[in-house]
Amino acid sequence: MESLFDVFADLSAVARIAIDEAFARGLDPQDKGEGAYDPVTEADRSVERALRFRIEALFPADGIVGEEFGALRSDAGRVWSLDPIDGTRALVCGLASWTVLVGLVEDGRPVAGMIDTPRLGELVVGDGTQTLLLHEGGPRELQTSGIATLAEARLSTTDPYLFDADAAPRFERLRKAARLTRYGLDGYAYARIAMGTIDLVAEAGLKPHDWQALVPVVRGAGGVIGNWRGGDDLSGGDGVA
Amino acid sequence: MESLFDVFADLSAVARIAIDEAFARGLDPQDKGEGAYDPVTEADRSVERALRFRIEALFPADGIVGEEFGALRSDAGRVWSLDPIDGTRALVCGLASWTVLVGLVEDGRPVAGMIDTPRLGELVVGDGTQTLLLHEGGPRELQTSGIATLAEARLSTTDPYLFDADAAPRFERLRKAARLTRYGLDGYAYARIAMGTIDLVAEAGLKPHDWQALVPVVRGAGGVIGNWRGGDDLSGGDGVA
Repeated sequence: MESLFDVFADLSAVARIAIDEAFARGLDPQDKGEGAYDPVTEADRSVERALRFRIEALFPADGIVGEEFGALRSDAGRVWSLDPIDGTRALVCGLASWTVLVGLVEDGRPVAGMIDTPRLGELVVGDGTQTLLLHEGGPRELQTSGIATLAEARLSTTDPYLFDADAAPRFERLRKAARLTRYGLDGYAYARIAMGTIDLVAEAGLKPHDWQALVPVVRGAGGVIGNWRGGDDLSGGDGVA
Repeated sequence: MESLFDVFADLSAVARIAIDEAFARGLDPQDKGEGAYDPVTEADRSVERALRFRIEALFPADGIVGEEFGALRSDAGRVWSLDPIDGTRALVCGLASWTVLVGLVEDGRPVAGMIDTPRLGELVVGDGTQTLLLHEGGPRELQTSGIATLAEARLSTTDPYLFDADAAPRFERLRKAARLTRYGLDGYAYARIAMGTIDLVAEAGLKPHDWQALVPVVRGAGGVIGNWRGGDDLSGGDGVA
């Protein structure tokens, strides 16, 4: 098999073509209508369709679980986890920080992932031991910042109003101690953790297709990612990187 | 005189060269050390130096007031207002939404402005009656979204923790009524207002070099910008667009 990094570069190219086509047709955002405004666009559907088609052609025995079109062979040994557009709220505001997330899960464990940011041309791919920024002119190996004190840390969270009564005061303490805080970055914050320009992310309400791609990227760049209680298990949806 | 739009295109080119040079030398962020972390980088200083030099060469009688290097002939009939890097916190986090703001003030009234977003290649220039996105392949005239109900509005503010005891509950009501909220965009939010993908911005603590460039851009795209009390005067630092 070709290297996983080559596979992700191929999937990124497939996703970016589908995005360009969706932009040309119009995004047509629709509310998923489950509580808070949760938009889904033509780009979400196009990208997931294109990725599923490509993965099925490359690895017909693998499973695929996507945010928009559900599960296929999810009991296979290798399962691809797709969030075709992570950060659809940013996309509908015309911002650049939305990403395409693809994770590879083997026997339930996330082993490789990609965070692609098409509008910025940044493709970040990690396998838990190494994380690369792939771009023209050759890949660059990424390393987290190494900043270890909260007073120097650049903190990020997707939505400061998303924490429950238990987590909110803990986040408030983090925010006050950190050097500065950025909001609304979704998966892109983890690409920036790997690139060493954000030092800490704290989130609640993560879903599997959110974190399965992110874990191998953060760990491959030398970072630590786990739940708020210091464990490795992210299935509770609360995460700190 | 050449058109103001050409002048701004020229100033954008000058600023982008200075930015590339500053990136090549290293940003070297330093805390300005007045309360909350307020970084200033080599890019802020380089861009302001380059813009001042260029404006002095083009319009030797005009005044210049910049965030980093103060006022020169600020009592002139025409004064250029410079915020060389608006969104330095975003810049030090490796994000793309920082901008270069240049405003032109005549007899105390902001008459033209530019919001340049070099990392995204978006140069937005307005003169109060027209706002253009200048890019390769010719300019495009911009128009605000026209969304007039709060329930459909995409809201933005720079920092939800910046409002005082008086403004905080008003912002909280806005946030709960709006469709979604984005944070930390600084001047770029106003470029997105002009492009019609953000509908409402509410801020506190604005300084003259922040809003003088933004007012003609928002008004030129058909938008409304003023203070929280419904007036035109932004010198109190609270603004709604």
